[in-house]
Amino acid sequence: MSIEFIPYGHVTTPEGFVAGAVCAGMYASGPKAGQPDLGILFSQRECASAGVLTTNLVRSAPVYVNEKRLPAGNLRGAVTNSGNANAPFGNAGIAEAEEMAALAARHAGVPPEQFAVCSTGVTGVVLPIDKVRAAIPGITLSREGGPDFARAIMTTDTRPKQAAVAVTEGGRLLFRVGGCCKGSGMIHPNMATMLAYMTADAAVEPGYLQRLTKKVADATFNMVTVDGDTSCSDTLLVFANGAAGGETIREVDPAASLLEEAFMAVATRLARELARDGEGARHLIAVNVSGAATLGEARQLARTVALSSLVKTAVAGNDPNWGRILVAAGRAGVRLDPAKASVSLQGVPLFRNGGVVPFDEDDVHGRMKADEVAIDIDLALGDGRATAWGCDLTTDYVHINADYRT
Amino acid sequence: MSIEFIPYGHVTTPEGFVAGAVCAGMYASGPKAGQPDLGILFSQRECASAGVLTTNLVRSAPVYVNEKRLPAGNLRGAVTNSGNANAPFGNAGIAEAEEMAALAARHAGVPPEQFAVCSTGVTGVVLPIDKVRAAIPGITLSREGGPDFARAIMTTDTRPKQAAVAVTEGGRLLFRVGGCCKGSGMIHPNMATMLAYMTADAAVEPGYLQRLTKKVADATFNMVTVDGDTSCSDTLLVFANGAAGGETIREVDPAASLLEEAFMAVATRLARELARDGEGARHLIAVNVSGAATLGEARQLARTVALSSLVKTAVAGNDPNWGRILVAAGRAGVRLDPAKASVSLQGVPLFRNGGVVPFDEDDVHGRMKADEVAIDIDLALGDGRATAWGCDLTTDYVHINADYRT
Repeated sequence: MSIEFIPYGHVTTPEGFVAGAVCAGMYASGPKAGQPDLGILFSQRECASAGVLTTNLVRSAPVYVNEKRLPAGNLRGAVTNSGNANAPFGNAGIAEAEEMAALAARHAGVPPEQFAVCSTGVTGVVLPIDKVRAAIPGITLSREGGPDFARAIMTTDTRPKQAAVAVTEGGRLLFRVGGCCKGSGMIHPNMATMLAYMTADAAVEPGYLQRLTKKVADATFNMVTVDGDTSCSDTLLVFANGAAGGETIREVDPAASLLEEAFMAVATRLARELARDGEGARHLIAVNVSGAATLGEARQLARTVALSSLVKTAVAGNDPNWGRILVAAGRAGVRLDPAKASVSLQGVPLFRNGGVVPFDEDDVHGRMKADEVAIDIDLALGDGRATAWGCDLTTDYVHINADYRT
Repeated sequence: MSIEFIPYGHVTTPEGFVAGAVCAGMYASGPKAGQPDLGILFSQRECASAGVLTTNLVRSAPVYVNEKRLPAGNLRGAVTNSGNANAPFGNAGIAEAEEMAALAARHAGVPPEQFAVCSTGVTGVVLPIDKVRAAIPGITLSREGGPDFARAIMTTDTRPKQAAVAVTEGGRLLFRVGGCCKGSGMIHPNMATMLAYMTADAAVEPGYLQRLTKKVADATFNMVTVDGDTSCSDTLLVFANGAAGGETIREVDPAASLLEEAFMAVATRLARELARDGEGARHLIAVNVSGAATLGEARQLARTVALSSLVKTAVAGNDPNWGRILVAAGRAGVRLDPAKASVSLQGVPLFRNGGVVPFDEDDVHGRMKADEVAIDIDLALGDGRATAWGCDLTTDYVHINADYRT
């Protein structure tokens, strides 16, 4: 059995999924004006669905709508716009979100309850539903539409983020898993929003699909941090339609581990791309923790270090500042003994067993100029392992978020 | 009874305290080269002492020494250097910290166990104790030495931070409380360190002084956030020597509330100055939370908002971005109902009872150009109130911490 990335794979690479996008005119100016900003992703067959929504108590209107629809586990599509998060934070916006879902469902030919809805962009303003009404009929859904959908959901992302894998056995295709996402983008000084969509043409038991979705999100999207500001719109939606044939996969089946591995592969790639394209980022930072007392503590530690402003600025300056890494680790709220801990940067040990390891500073400084910077922390306490992905903190991040809107 | 700030008051304004500083040569270059970098603060009388130390599990060597000495409650002084944090993070550095305390104690004429020791500056390097040995005898201790001490402990702080209050009753002086501190400074790309010292010439029962110290720290210094990176050296030391005369104040005495108020007044001023002088800061941000379910939740919420990168960059851009404030509040991990919450900026209501309040954006943008920006959040859930102090996130913060050391 093998799991392999499909070159240029995307969210409609799995069989039976179609997508499309159109310009609804959500952007009056800027690089996205006149570009697609409204897209639909749809399964041509009945399918199992699952999702994970933001844990923020302040939520955009679409989150309330999706929350009601996810438990049924039978969503077939999602409609998404960029340029406006439909997050007025009162009771407003809900009717608009529901209408947007209904318009997309009618266009696709399914009941409104089978559509999810997402919006991303500026907050504080109710979605201009008239633009959605006018634009939806113009969306053409096709197997080739995945990349258009991935572009439509971008805000200030510098590039679309998409991937797909094929799972084969003895040369025979078992199923495919695809996905796309958008990251922290500001179209206006406002908050980052993470939206991700994953598709599979395997048939999956709906209850298991939900547990799998949570597990995948915890190990991948939830391990990405750009600035620590959880959005009011964060959403991961997963669809599995069985178009590839084969038995319905349940949690107890041998095929479940293969399915999980395929989802993890796609989600990990998307998560890394989210971090790499963080606002103002010039480096992807991967913080690999091993030897933590538990998995939870490994994740907590990895996220804390990846989010540390002092670690992020050190990476921006290609500075092998192991002291900042260690001190960020010390405040992570996890069990840690500095006398046992080790820290490496780009594979070079800098601190080991409680003592500094002499190293060639110019050499490590040079190695840190790579696109990706790996920080390895071993606590030598237990079996907990985790990776978090972040990005460096540059003056561009400040410019993007501090320059007063005109 | 009244509590009033003393113009130009400082850490040796209370009776019976002396201080002094000298240049030990900790800085080879930069603005502090040739400036005082080693200071002693000393009580000429026996006194009660208390302290609060960093909660970081990765700690500088002086923290280990102070941790052993604080429980006795009879410290009489502290010796402090800037330019080197004596934080090699192994077992190294402890002997140097102990010797530094012993040298200062001998110079002051008391047993070594009655001295605390603090170091702040670059990490990863053992303190050059030979420089301390040579410099200590040159320190002259005097009533006027408080400001010299406050300057000696600075790293890249742009100014000393000091204050004192007089507590009077019917025109008669009861006692004075003074203090000084240093904030987030980088002499080298490295971590921020908070050191604070407070003195009182009231007599205070030692056990109560420790509880008071913890209470004051929780409401003031622990509510300051510059970049979320808890240091390995954070230390607050408090001395109360009874030189003003009067009965020893115990927790049950009526004078205790007066003492607490005086300590809170000085510590609050110092905490605000720490935030105002945060690295690269152009605005002090005060986040005032009311109506939280509990005091703990109010503090948690205030700190979360003050630390939010998106709120900090919005303040840097004078941007009345109430959406970012609300969304940061939503992820604070405290009980919150957006339909009840209100947000004001510089006293102008922007969001109330779950809805946007129309406001003059240019007006609020203009008001945000003030040195200090007040964010008021009312959750309308309970009686929890708290204030956190932070600063805006500017490109200067990134420059200070990302520019590779040469």
